Amino acid sequence: MNIIHTVGALRAWRKTAGTTAFVPTMGNLHEGHLALVREAKKRADKVVVSIFVNRLQFGQGEDFDRYPRTLHQDAEKLAGEGVAALFAPDERALYPNVEQRYNIEPPHLQNELCGKFRPGHFRGVATVVAKLFNIVQPDFACFGKKDYQQLAIIKGLVEDLDFPVEIVPVDTGRAADGLALSSRNQYLNAAERAEAPRLYRELQTIAAALRGGDLAYAELEAAAVRKLQQAGWVADYVEIRRAGTLDTAHAGDKQLVVLAAARLGNTRLIDNIEVSLD
Amino acid sequence: MNIIHTVGALRAWRKTAGTTAFVPTMGNLHEGHLALVREAKKRADKVVVSIFVNRLQFGQGEDFDRYPRTLHQDAEKLAGEGVAALFAPDERALYPNVEQRYNIEPPHLQNELCGKFRPGHFRGVATVVAKLFNIVQPDFACFGKKDYQQLAIIKGLVEDLDFPVEIVPVDTGRAADGLALSSRNQYLNAAERAEAPRLYRELQTIAAALRGGDLAYAELEAAAVRKLQQAGWVADYVEIRRAGTLDTAHAGDKQLVVLAAARLGNTRLIDNIEVSLD
Repeated sequence: MNIIHTVGALRAWRKTAGTTAFVPTMGNLHEGHLALVREAKKRADKVVVSIFVNRLQFGQGEDFDRYPRTLHQDAEKLAGEGVAALFAPDERALYPNVEQRYNIEPPHLQNELCGKFRPGHFRGVATVVAKLFNIVQPDFACFGKKDYQQLAIIKGLVEDLDFPVEIVPVDTGRAADGLALSSRNQYLNAAERAEAPRLYRELQTIAAALRGGDLAYAELEAAAVRKLQQAGWVADYVEIRRAGTLDTAHAGDKQLVVLAAARLGNTRLIDNIEVSLD
Repeated sequence: MNIIHTVGALRAWRKTAGTTAFVPTMGNLHEGHLALVREAKKRADKVVVSIFVNRLQFGQGEDFDRYPRTLHQDAEKLAGEGVAALFAPDERALYPNVEQRYNIEPPHLQNELCGKFRPGHFRGVATVVAKLFNIVQPDFACFGKKDYQQLAIIKGLVEDLDFPVEIVPVDTGRAADGLALSSRNQYLNAAERAEAPRLYRELQTIAAALRGGDLAYAELEAAAVRKLQQAGWVADYVEIRRAGTLDTAHAGDKQLVVLAAARLGNTRLIDNIEVSLD
């Protein structure tokens, strides 16, 4: 596996690589990331994984500084999966002028759902992904459905700005008790870890109600928020939206997604579940 | 010459084309554009020219509707220059959702100089150029220095978002009397056309003063504005800036550019001149 730290070296490697599939990550890789890598391997001979903790998508007071950085272990996992190149730029390689002057400005969706609680986050995500696409020039790029709003924004970015890359959505990896895999799970203490699967259970409860014909979206959302708060969570939101685009859901919509973000102690967890009523 | 109207057909053609140089235009081609094409031919076997009058970069009350559209004559000129492909998408091909939802947001430079008088213009330019780069995927792209601020913004865009394309600046083509070639010159009546070269003469006067050691930038600018207004122009600005970046110029700077925009009747003309004091 080639471990590449500079843009120039990545571009040189890329010229020789043929069809490639790309998995952008912030590192600290778990089974969820490896599922993305395996999906990428189905699409192309050469898989490129990037590891870059992108300051641009972290807000004031967020966990940029304490975000787990485990490059050595990550590289071993990726080598074991047959990854062709690991792109691990330092900050100066991606932001040589320190300030990023040209940014991708996503539409209003960037200020909804998680964006309401993380101002600037999706702008930073869209901008770094545009940069990485231009550097790696992949034919395919794999993104997890666990970050559903991020996936929606990347799909919109690619469509609207005509990036020559096919986006491959990958199902959320879960622990045996249902908790969505996330690097942030390791912030949880034992009691919080035991409580954490409630988030997905509440989403499943709403999904079951929707499948049963319940159209009282706002009530379902409010009930889930109430139950989370009774269990000690601070719920940022629980929302039922149209699948894919994340447009406002209306009665009669058949393809829905239920999304939630909530904090348990100092740890913010997100999850979602797609519901097809066809 | 291939005349291509859809994104899909352009992408299919591109796969077979090898190294390419790209000249994005709004059509109504004159010798200035053909100089860009000839510069492109020096860089790559295959030259792609796009013709697209980009609504996104026109403001309210600007000349989008009356902008000259002369595709048939343009195609003949390009065929005569040995252009490999003419990409002439209609609006639905580039803006299938009508609204462009994801935009490139340039830095504050977009609101200075011409940007002060054309709000949103450089955002629209940067966005359509990003789209065209992603569709055409050129190795080189040629831009005229006549649109100096546009060139600065495209260079910044490419650098900051890591587009894999080399920007080739091309000197301004001029009529015998010095007037910079522009599609908008045809809006001028005979009297205005006779007056129009004054804009470049005023820039030359400032350039001569700078070469003579005059550091009173603001006075030089104000004198040129005054002379244009005495001759019946409405001057949007005359400014001395640092060449290339368009940062504020300071005493001691050796690489300068003098830029001006002024209206003669209903026609807005721009021009600039680089001054090297080395």
